[in-house]
Amino acid sequence: MIVTVTLNPALDLTYTVDALIPHGTHRVSTVAERPGGKGLNVATVLRTLGEPVLATGLLGGATGGRVEGLLTVPAAFVPIGGETRRTVTVADGVDATGFSEPGPRVTAQEWAAFTAHFAEFMDEADVVALSGSLPPGVPADGYATLIRLAADRGVRSVLDTSGEALRLGLTAGPELVKPNATELAGLLSDDRPRARDDEIADADRARSHGAREVVVSRGPRGLLALTRQGSWRGVPSEHLLGNPTGAGDACVAALSRGLRRRTPWPRLLADAVALSAAAVVTPVAGAVDLDTYRRLLPAVHVSAA
Amino acid sequence: MIVTVTLNPALDLTYTVDALIPHGTHRVSTVAERPGGKGLNVATVLRTLGEPVLATGLLGGATGGRVEGLLTVPAAFVPIGGETRRTVTVADGVDATGFSEPGPRVTAQEWAAFTAHFAEFMDEADVVALSGSLPPGVPADGYATLIRLAADRGVRSVLDTSGEALRLGLTAGPELVKPNATELAGLLSDDRPRARDDEIADADRARSHGAREVVVSRGPRGLLALTRQGSWRGVPSEHLLGNPTGAGDACVAALSRGLRRRTPWPRLLADAVALSAAAVVTPVAGAVDLDTYRRLLPAVHVSAA
Repeated sequence: MIVTVTLNPALDLTYTVDALIPHGTHRVSTVAERPGGKGLNVATVLRTLGEPVLATGLLGGATGGRVEGLLTVPAAFVPIGGETRRTVTVADGVDATGFSEPGPRVTAQEWAAFTAHFAEFMDEADVVALSGSLPPGVPADGYATLIRLAADRGVRSVLDTSGEALRLGLTAGPELVKPNATELAGLLSDDRPRARDDEIADADRARSHGAREVVVSRGPRGLLALTRQGSWRGVPSEHLLGNPTGAGDACVAALSRGLRRRTPWPRLLADAVALSAAAVVTPVAGAVDLDTYRRLLPAVHVSAA
Repeated sequence: MIVTVTLNPALDLTYTVDALIPHGTHRVSTVAERPGGKGLNVATVLRTLGEPVLATGLLGGATGGRVEGLLTVPAAFVPIGGETRRTVTVADGVDATGFSEPGPRVTAQEWAAFTAHFAEFMDEADVVALSGSLPPGVPADGYATLIRLAADRGVRSVLDTSGEALRLGLTAGPELVKPNATELAGLLSDDRPRARDDEIADADRARSHGAREVVVSRGPRGLLALTRQGSWRGVPSEHLLGNPTGAGDACVAALSRGLRRRTPWPRLLADAVALSAAAVVTPVAGAVDLDTYRRLLPAVHVSAA
């Protein structure tokens, strides 16, 4: 089983308006509500693939109850006293404008309760995917704690986060880390544009921070993997237009499934490239188009890096 | 007792952002949540004045539960299956940008349950204030039904709505109607700008639609009242700057209290002018500044219209 962790989930609201007029009043024509949070997107993709999955994390208040009611994946969230946050995306036919609430404050007691539940889930897990930001109150090394609890029970971790949570999470030696270029730059405290040659050096420095293997997501340019078996670039055979928001989560879903099934590199890389691309063509994060996935999979370009 | 009716309440969210950037992503620094809806604002003002009040209406789902939890007035809402709507106001230091969700669909059975509860409340009511829009599913003549149920028990109604709900509501002969200039224009199917002379004729036509008395809110220019005792204009002695959103609801609160206490015209008009102005100086709808109210009350200019 794959356990996905979402410590700072959200109720994602998408408002459709005719046109966004700053300082105007807008009658929203349609409201879409869905459970939000990168770990929940990973779980939804895994569920679509027919993979055994359990989503966990923290939920609280009326908004947390609403998120729980909308979940379509097996889930065991730990309750907190604070209100789960919302995000609002305003779509106006041209593009989207986003508003992201801060997360609720988590108490030390709630965090302790979560880690105890998490340790129990590890008895039945093969792989754990840790995705997204930490809410206020969760220690900055929270992911490191979870990665160690998982490793104690022989469970391998995939980490997908940014900033301090990423840097400290790496110190616990996750099996795999999936930064994008910006997250990698943040990790290196250095965000100047890099030439192609630096890309491998950067990814390798991320590995030196503690991750066993690194997969860097590079948008339409595909993925770069530094593994124990070798280093490869994987690039989709077509440039697909659409919504790239959930592509990273689909990538983490593919990597988690590959770890669980012990899919060898670079086959796992090709799988992650095709599944990421299959997320781009769907309008919402957490969805993948399986026809696109099957069509692209045999045609992914993989080359030694 | 005064009963206030809010058939389409909302959870009002106010987001603070540094600057609103269309098609950008915004980290919200603070989130304020409050119960929204014109009838709830009226109830809150009455409560501040120490007046006996009961707020009723329709609430549903997790958002309805959240609204109920935030209420600071005595309330007896009728549950519905749909989700109570939200409004989002984005404040960026310059001005506010508003987004208003449509209301939930109300079933015929839920509306019947509401009217039965409403009829029971009328046994203890002196005055009922009916404010705001009707959610989908409530018949367009919903306010007319409530005004008749109230009148059957000798309870007088104050109506504050717009469009078809206003036009049909008037046919039941409410004691008092409080349109603003735009609502009046909508009622007359005629929204061209009007000269001062037309103002009285317009208000009188609204009376001919069924209301016994009419008070037109005219923004900083105060109020115009056409009553059985005569017609007057009431203008505040000072032009106050601030947030005019809740001024109309404070006006309805003053008028409802005046009806209950049988305050004679034009004293009631002066009271409504001062309380409306006392709402402008507070940052949120539903609040009034009692010091401003007491200071302005003796200085309201009242003249025969």
